[in-house]
Amino acid sequence: MSTVKFIGAGPGDPELLTRKAWRVLSEAEIILHDALIDIKGMKAAAPNANWIYVGKRSGVISVEQEFISRMLVSYALKGYQVVRLKGGDPSIFGRLTEEIEACRFAEVDVEVIPGVTAASAAAAQIQASLTSRGVSRSVTFVTPRVGNRSMNNDSEWLTVSLAASTVVIYMASTQSRLIGKQLINGGKSGTTPVCIVESASMDGYSMRMTLEDLAETELPDVPGPVLIMMGETFSEASVQMHSVSKQRTNIQFDELAIGS
Amino acid sequence: MSTVKFIGAGPGDPELLTRKAWRVLSEAEIILHDALIDIKGMKAAAPNANWIYVGKRSGVISVEQEFISRMLVSYALKGYQVVRLKGGDPSIFGRLTEEIEACRFAEVDVEVIPGVTAASAAAAQIQASLTSRGVSRSVTFVTPRVGNRSMNNDSEWLTVSLAASTVVIYMASTQSRLIGKQLINGGKSGTTPVCIVESASMDGYSMRMTLEDLAETELPDVPGPVLIMMGETFSEASVQMHSVSKQRTNIQFDELAIGS
Repeated sequence: MSTVKFIGAGPGDPELLTRKAWRVLSEAEIILHDALIDIKGMKAAAPNANWIYVGKRSGVISVEQEFISRMLVSYALKGYQVVRLKGGDPSIFGRLTEEIEACRFAEVDVEVIPGVTAASAAAAQIQASLTSRGVSRSVTFVTPRVGNRSMNNDSEWLTVSLAASTVVIYMASTQSRLIGKQLINGGKSGTTPVCIVESASMDGYSMRMTLEDLAETELPDVPGPVLIMMGETFSEASVQMHSVSKQRTNIQFDELAIGS
Repeated sequence: MSTVKFIGAGPGDPELLTRKAWRVLSEAEIILHDALIDIKGMKAAAPNANWIYVGKRSGVISVEQEFISRMLVSYALKGYQVVRLKGGDPSIFGRLTEEIEACRFAEVDVEVIPGVTAASAAAAQIQASLTSRGVSRSVTFVTPRVGNRSMNNDSEWLTVSLAASTVVIYMASTQSRLIGKQLINGGKSGTTPVCIVESASMDGYSMRMTLEDLAETELPDVPGPVLIMMGETFSEASVQMHSVSKQRTNIQFDELAIGS
């Protein structure tokens, strides 16, 4: 039976693919992939496969999503070894459901190989824990960006974020100030520790601030994906802003433009 | 400088360690490890290293935690290549903070290598997504079990779980009925889809039910770790209870004893 294998590519560093992901990737003939930070490093797993970029541009999501699903099914039915390579873990903000449904509808078998999600890599980079005994016994991954609207009007993301102990906000860099403001307006303490990590696992920048800083600060325009992490587990003693001093982007918090 | 490397062992299957985790493990001389499902498979990475089991028994946590930290520091200061191997991702319910603090205090360097958390592997196993466009734009990992008390008196875990769209409850199997009841009492709909996955990635059992079923059902006593996952993203059409028909445990929902 035809099969499409959905693989989590992890946070960026090709060495953070799982051994299984790497093996299955090496057996693939056709690989449909998103925008990945180090695509060259990934290609070493399957240099002779046909790598097809299907990263989405904002604004035309539904058409492209349908197109991707159609390609997956069509190649699988032709008998190719098809891999769908997604950043991070496919089940976390990976639009997995739509593509799996298309495969099932066409009676194409599906296998999912999980990956390291960006939040885990970001926590590892700053040597912090997302949960912490006596401090935070839960962690919530949330994104305020849905579809082609830059910030959703309803407040589901806000309700969830206000209730959570540790919050990791994905795909939020361009809205960081608004996010900070809405959380403070919603009642979250302005002194809540915040860590920003860019291109986790790939030596991106990281910095520590408070929620109040976040609400008042313009984040720098950076190439890689940005996570905003907040909660008492990121107290000053519990994080290590390692990367700031040695990295390519190398932006210190006090070097940032403070927005009006 | 002396270094302790904290490695996420992933959900169980040794092939779900990252390539980096496997490489660093293979360079280790002393490996302090938790209870891992397939320890034999892991040992293939470093057959000549000294593998020391430091899994915790409930009831004597604080003493053992201190003991583990002391061992880590002491071996590192003696110049050994020390790895601390934790199930899943070290930053998610891994008690990472305490051990890192002990290293910092002793001026021992720390490196963290992230892993695949159990929730990602469980979602992969049932071919479901933890987030889903238009259905759930957040996922929360929570545990109601803290320290040696079987269920915490305060309701932080409940507040967080009620607010979240998708909830994954770690380390909860023995309290599943109480959890179900408290969530329904708190206002969560009894029809909320629930998936139970045991020993994710290791062919454990999985089953689908409703929150109401969870509140009324005694889960079977199984050897591996159990995740309780709930939310509209686990609708019947969106999950695949693959493992039920082919696995070692092989328990169907309707075979379970229905508790009084």
